[in-house]
Amino acid sequence: MSQQPVIILVGPQMAENVGMSARAMMNCGLYELRLVNPREDHLSAKAISASSNAEEILYNAKVYASTEEAIADLNYVYAATARHRDQIKPVYNADTAAVEMSKFITGHGSCGILFGCERTGLSNVDVSLANAIINIPLNPKHSSLNLSQAVLIICYEFYKTQIEKPEVHLEMNGTSLASKDKVIKFVQHFEKLLENCGNYKEGDKREKMFINLQNIFTRTQLTEQEINSLYGAINYISRQN
Amino acid sequence: MSQQPVIILVGPQMAENVGMSARAMMNCGLYELRLVNPREDHLSAKAISASSNAEEILYNAKVYASTEEAIADLNYVYAATARHRDQIKPVYNADTAAVEMSKFITGHGSCGILFGCERTGLSNVDVSLANAIINIPLNPKHSSLNLSQAVLIICYEFYKTQIEKPEVHLEMNGTSLASKDKVIKFVQHFEKLLENCGNYKEGDKREKMFINLQNIFTRTQLTEQEINSLYGAINYISRQN
Repeated sequence: MSQQPVIILVGPQMAENVGMSARAMMNCGLYELRLVNPREDHLSAKAISASSNAEEILYNAKVYASTEEAIADLNYVYAATARHRDQIKPVYNADTAAVEMSKFITGHGSCGILFGCERTGLSNVDVSLANAIINIPLNPKHSSLNLSQAVLIICYEFYKTQIEKPEVHLEMNGTSLASKDKVIKFVQHFEKLLENCGNYKEGDKREKMFINLQNIFTRTQLTEQEINSLYGAINYISRQN
Repeated sequence: MSQQPVIILVGPQMAENVGMSARAMMNCGLYELRLVNPREDHLSAKAISASSNAEEILYNAKVYASTEEAIADLNYVYAATARHRDQIKPVYNADTAAVEMSKFITGHGSCGILFGCERTGLSNVDVSLANAIINIPLNPKHSSLNLSQAVLIICYEFYKTQIEKPEVHLEMNGTSLASKDKVIKFVQHFEKLLENCGNYKEGDKREKMFINLQNIFTRTQLTEQEINSLYGAINYISRQN
């Protein structure tokens, strides 16, 4: 049983879009592609080229004569559709659907997502085969996505449920954040050089300048490496005077 | 001052990708596009066609000779890059960055996102112009996104911060959920028809069947309309016997 949602393209018209969908799937770690009556050959040079090294997915893709056959072994099916449908069906946002899919696969079984053809999307009969609808929240004035873009967003939302990543981290390039002590000593060194210049500000103005410098170098979260660069730079300048 | 992040494509190579990026922007309600030294004409037929009715964004796009000029009026700049960079810089996931951008625009000023060219991405100098890096979490074995796909994901994450949507809703098609009373009465009606068939199960088996039916029709969250269809269907079948 597949541990990933299966991507099912129903009647895709353009080989490039099938290729780009395969690329988007691989970008997000999804590998199982099914095609229902594709109009063009999904193994054509155009498709392979558009897949940008994801041709493995195209070679492994299965082709079916009907949506019913393409979903036969699955337990739960979503229909990706932007248009309002006159059908009674739960409608999930892409991110919520991704979380549900992930839980479903862990707990129950296999699931798949149906995507319609470029020109008209899914037919009403195809939508009626789905347990639920996935809607990608988009600008209501321009909600028509390219097929591979729709595939990408849903695969991306699923991928996000599969990984644990810090929301933000500081890229350190082998160095470490400077301790407060080092930052304070550097600002004091800077201040001393300024004093040595002569004509340096007096009283309130001097204090204001000092506080500004202290704030600037505190706020930037300096690393050890950067503090060394700063010492080098200002020492160099001060020797020019 | 722009109330939206500005999308800045640095040295894009293919007009189609510029057009598809415009389409992705409009899908997500973003309208301000800037181009630094595009290789091909962003108003060519190829670009307009790929924009799929988002040509307004292409016509309004400004072209610059350098990244420095393209970001001159902005207050905060992100670099979208998949590769590890030897630079000390905060790295945000796309979703967290979108939330930060939204807060920044509300509170402080304008921001933009730099995207590099298709073949090599952003140069190190371009990255050094950015306050922070945006990373789209993707399959580490295949993390190279098409340019317009990268633009789409970041615009989509921003759009999600701008809207309030229920995570899931039931599409009702003008009808309403049936009350429990109607569901229970329908199951009882079904049971009565079964009893009238003769040869109907006895004792434990009968109760099991009843409970199964009750569960099936309770779990599906029937609407008024659907209950009427069910009455019609089973009454019709029972008259055939």
